[in-house]
Amino acid sequence: MSTFVRNAWYVAAWSHEVGRQLLARTILGDPVLLYRREDGQPAALVDRCPHKLAPLSLGELKGDHVQCGYHGMTFDCTGSCVRVPGQQNIPPTARVRAYPLHERYNAVWIWMGDPALADPAAIVEVPRYGEPGWGLVDGQYLHFRSNYLNITDNLVDPAHTTYVHKKTIGNAAGEDVGVTVEQGDAHVLAYRWIRNAPPVPLVARMGNFRGVTDRWQYYYLHLPSTSYVDFGSIDAGTEPSEANKDSGFRSFSFNFLTPETESTTHYFWLHLRNYHPGDPKVSADVASLMALTFQEDADLLAFVQREQERTGVREYTRLAIDNAPARIRRMVERLQAAEATPPGPDSRA
Amino acid sequence: MSTFVRNAWYVAAWSHEVGRQLLARTILGDPVLLYRREDGQPAALVDRCPHKLAPLSLGELKGDHVQCGYHGMTFDCTGSCVRVPGQQNIPPTARVRAYPLHERYNAVWIWMGDPALADPAAIVEVPRYGEPGWGLVDGQYLHFRSNYLNITDNLVDPAHTTYVHKKTIGNAAGEDVGVTVEQGDAHVLAYRWIRNAPPVPLVARMGNFRGVTDRWQYYYLHLPSTSYVDFGSIDAGTEPSEANKDSGFRSFSFNFLTPETESTTHYFWLHLRNYHPGDPKVSADVASLMALTFQEDADLLAFVQREQERTGVREYTRLAIDNAPARIRRMVERLQAAEATPPGPDSRA
Amino acid sequence: MSTFVRNAWYVAAWSHEVGRQLLARTILGDPVLLYRREDGQPAALVDRCPHKLAPLSLGELKGDHVQCGYHGMTFDCTGSCVRVPGQQNIPPTARVRAYPLHERYNAVWIWMGDPALADPAAIVEVPRYGEPGWGLVDGQYLHFRSNYLNITDNLVDPAHTTYVHKKTIGNAAGEDVGVTVEQGDAHVLAYRWIRNAPPVPLVARMGNFRGVTDRWQYYYLHLPSTSYVDFGSIDAGTEPSEANKDSGFRSFSFNFLTPETESTTHYFWLHLRNYHPGDPKVSADVASLMALTFQEDADLLAFVQREQERTGVREYTRLAIDNAPARIRRMVERLQAAEATPPGPDSRA
Repeated sequence: MSTFVRNAWYVAAWSHEVGRQLLARTILGDPVLLYRREDGQPAALVDRCPHKLAPLSLGELKGDHVQCGYHGMTFDCTGSCVRVPGQQNIPPTARVRAYPLHERYNAVWIWMGDPALADPAAIVEVPRYGEPGWGLVDGQYLHFRSNYLNITDNLVDPAHTTYVHKKTIGNAAGEDVGVTVEQGDAHVLAYRWIRNAPPVPLVARMGNFRGVTDRWQYYYLHLPSTSYVDFGSIDAGTEPSEANKDSGFRSFSFNFLTPETESTTHYFWLHLRNYHPGDPKVSADVASLMALTFQEDADLLAFVQREQERTGVREYTRLAIDNAPARIRRMVERLQAAEATPPGPDSRA
Repeated sequence: MSTFVRNAWYVAAWSHEVGRQLLARTILGDPVLLYRREDGQPAALVDRCPHKLAPLSLGELKGDHVQCGYHGMTFDCTGSCVRVPGQQNIPPTARVRAYPLHERYNAVWIWMGDPALADPAAIVEVPRYGEPGWGLVDGQYLHFRSNYLNITDNLVDPAHTTYVHKKTIGNAAGEDVGVTVEQGDAHVLAYRWIRNAPPVPLVARMGNFRGVTDRWQYYYLHLPSTSYVDFGSIDAGTEPSEANKDSGFRSFSFNFLTPETESTTHYFWLHLRNYHPGDPKVSADVASLMALTFQEDADLLAFVQREQERTGVREYTRLAIDNAPARIRRMVERLQAAEATPPGPDSRA
Repeated sequence: MSTFVRNAWYVAAWSHEVGRQLLARTILGDPVLLYRREDGQPAALVDRCPHKLAPLSLGELKGDHVQCGYHGMTFDCTGSCVRVPGQQNIPPTARVRAYPLHERYNAVWIWMGDPALADPAAIVEVPRYGEPGWGLVDGQYLHFRSNYLNITDNLVDPAHTTYVHKKTIGNAAGEDVGVTVEQGDAHVLAYRWIRNAPPVPLVARMGNFRGVTDRWQYYYLHLPSTSYVDFGSIDAGTEPSEANKDSGFRSFSFNFLTPETESTTHYFWLHLRNYHPGDPKVSADVASLMALTFQEDADLLAFVQREQERTGVREYTRLAIDNAPARIRRMVERLQAAEATPPGPDSRA
C-alpha cells in the first residue's frame, strides 16, 4: 500500500544541483531526470526511455532535448519524442512523462500528480526568508532510511527532542511538559512552552543567557510533508510577544521531506535565525549542529523502519504525544483517498 | 516453518558480555536486550519499545530500569512500564516481554518459551568443570550462517571430521569406521572407537604418543542444541576404562547453539582438557585450533544452507551416518509439536 | 518464467581455466563443477553432493574422481557414486548429473539439456580461425548483470553502436542508416552499409585510411546466444567483394553468451582481425578497446535489467530496429516450447 500523496509540491533538488548535466533522482518511487534548459528554466522528465527502459540520464543533453544513450531517441522537455534515428514515423507510445516544476527558495519544486492541479501558490511560505536581520543556512540534505511518515511523526512531536537530541536542542526540562495541538485544513501544529528552564546545549553555546529561559517549540506540519519549526528562548518571565521573541534567540527550521521510496526519504532542510545573522562561522556551526540533530533522527528511524518492516507492526501502544502524528496520518489518508477517487464535475473549478 | 524450540535454555551471552551497558542480540528471531542490574543479576527484555518499535538498546540504563531513547518510556526488569514522560496514566499495552535468565558456567542462559517452565536444573551438566587437573578454554564465539539443525547434524556425526577437519581432529584412519547410536529421552549419542590409528594432527602436536593409538569420539547432543563431545586417545590396546581415559589425552568439548534466525546461529563454545591444564600457551593453542575446526564447519555449512534455501531441498540421498542426525530432527519436531499443542490440565504440575 | 534454452552448446569456460583444480561456475541456474581428467579430457558434474547439497567443488580430485569434502562420497566423471565411506551399499539416489562437454576454439563447451541430443557438430563455425593472416584475441570474459536476451538484443542491433560505442566502434555517420534483416532456421542476420563515412575511432586509430570509408556491420545471432559480427571498412566506393573486404580493415567478433542466472550472464568473447595479425601490441590494444566496448553494454544493460525487473515491463514502445531482436525472442520462445513438449516417436531419429 502506497503512503504517497502525489498532488503536492515536493523539493526535487536544490537549485544549484540542477544544471546542464543530467541529474537522476528517485521521487515517490518514480525515476526522475532533472536538468536546466538553455533559458535557465528547470525541466523534469521520467528518467526512463520508453523503448527499453534505459535511464535517460545516461544519455546527453542536446540543447533543450534529451537524447537517450542507447538508440538516440530524443525527447523535448514536455516529454514528446522529437526523433527516432533511422525511422521517419514516431510511434504514439514514444513519449515520457514530464513533471511541473517551480523554483523558489533556492529549490526546484516538483509536482508528481495531476499537472492540471499544479499551482505554485500552494508552495509553503517561508517567513523572514530574505529579510535583513535573518541568517540563512540552506542547500542542506540528508538521506533517511525511513518512510516519510515516520519522520513527520517526529516533526509534530516536540517531546522526542528531550531524548533524541539532548546534545543540541533538547534537555531534561522538557520531560513532563505536555503539548497543545491545533489542526487546520492542511496543517497540524503541536506546541509547548518550557518555562524557567536552563537553555538547551545549542542555545547555551550560541546565545548569551545568564539565567533560566522560557523556551518555545512550535511544530507545524503542512500536508503532506513540509515541516516548519519555530523555536527559541527568551529570558524567563518575558512577555511572549512576537516582538520579544524576535529580539530573543529565535530560529525557523524548515524540513522539506520528499519520499524517495516507501522506505527511504530525501530530507532537504533550511534554517533561518536571528542571531549573528551575517556571521559565516555561526552559519557553519548551525549547519553542523542541525545536521547532527537530524542525523540522530535518521539513525533512530532507520532502526524503527527496519523493525516495523520485519514485524509488519507500526506501534503496539499509543501515547498522548501521538495526538498530532495521528492527525497527520489520518489527513494524509484522506488526501490519498481523494486522489484515488474520480474527481466530480467541478473538481478543478 | 519455524525450526525453533522455545522451551529450552540457550546461552544468550558469555557473562563478561553482560554488564551495565545495553547489549542487543537476536535470539530465536526475537530482538533481545541484555544488561546487568545494580545487584549484579542479569536481566533480559525484548529489545523493542511497544510505542514505535525503537530498539530499547539505543536508550539508557537508569538504575535497574531501561529508558527508551526515543520518548523516554521506562521499563523495569520485569518489562513493566514505570514511566511515560508527559502523561500520568500508563497504558496497559505499555509493557515488554521479559525473559527468564540463569547464570552458569560463565554464561548467561536464557529461556525463550513459557516462563513457568523455566527450571535452571534443566541446564546441561558440564563434567569436570572447575575440577583440578582440567584446563578450561571458554568465552568463545562463532557466528554460523546456517540453520542450527545443520550444525546439530555435524555434532552427532563423527564421520565428517575425517573430511572436514583433517587439519586438526580428523584423519584417514576413521574413514570406514562405523558409528553406534544410542538414544535417550532428551539426547542422542553417536560414538565410535578408531583403533590402532596414528594420532590426529591436534593430538600429534600436543600429546606425546610414540606409536599408534586407540581414539574415541563420543558425540552427545542434548535437545535441542547443546553438544557435548568426549574425545581422546590412549595408547593402542589400553583398556578403555574411565581412569585410563583420564590419564590419556582427553577433551570435553561443549558447543552451545543458540539460533539467531532460521538461517543463522550463535555458536558459543567451551573446551575442557586434561593435558597441560594450567599452561596458558596450550590454552591459546587449543582455542586457536578449535576455532579453526569450527570455522571449517561454519564455512562449509554456509554453502550448504545457501543451496538448501535456493533449491528448497535438504537432501537428495540418505546415508547410514544420518541415523543420529535424523533422530535429532525427529525429536526436535516432537518438541515443536508439543509446544504447539495446548497443555493438558496437569502439564505444569 | 525461465528464458533458458537447455538443448544448446554454451561456453562453460576457456580451456585454460579447466585443469586439475575444481572450478565452480553457475550455468543456466545450475551449479556446475568443471575439472580435467588425468587423460586431459574435461569433465563436468553438477556441483552439489546429493547427500546434504554441499558443493563438490569444496572437495578434492582423486584421480578422475571427485570426493566430497563433507563425508567423502566419491563420484566418477559420469556422476556415478563409487564410494560411500563407512558403508558398503551405495544408495541408488547417490549420483549426480554429468554434462556433455566438447573442447573447441580454446573453449570448453557444455550441453545443459538432453545428453542424447548433444552433437558437437552443432557448435558454431568460426571462420578464419587459425588461418594465417588473421590475428586472434581470445580467452576474454565479462560478467553482465543482465538477462542474456537483453544482450542478444544488442547483438542483432547495429544501431546501438552509434550511441553506446562512440568511443570505439560507432560514430554519427550511422545515425539514420537502416538495417536489413534476414532470418535462417537457427540464426538472424541484421546488417547495413554506412557509406562515405569517416572511420570510427577504433579504425581511425588502427587503420590507415586517408579519406572516407564504406563501413559494413553484419550481425549474426545463432540461436540461442552465439553472436558473430563481421565488421570492417574499405575505401569509399570499393566494390564490396569478399576479397576486397579481406584486403580492407576487417574483424570477426564472436561473443558466446552463457546465461548464469535469469538476471546475469557470462560473456565470453574472441576476436579475429586481418590487420597487424602478428603484433602483440595491436592484440593488447584490440583486447582493451573491445573490452571497453562490451563493458559499455554491460553498464547500460545493468540499468535496463534493474528497471525492467522493478517495473515488470520490458518495453513501452517498439521501434523499427527491434525487428531482428524480436525475431530472436520469438525463435527462442519456440525452442523453449519445443523443449517443454514431450518428443514424438521419431524425434531423436
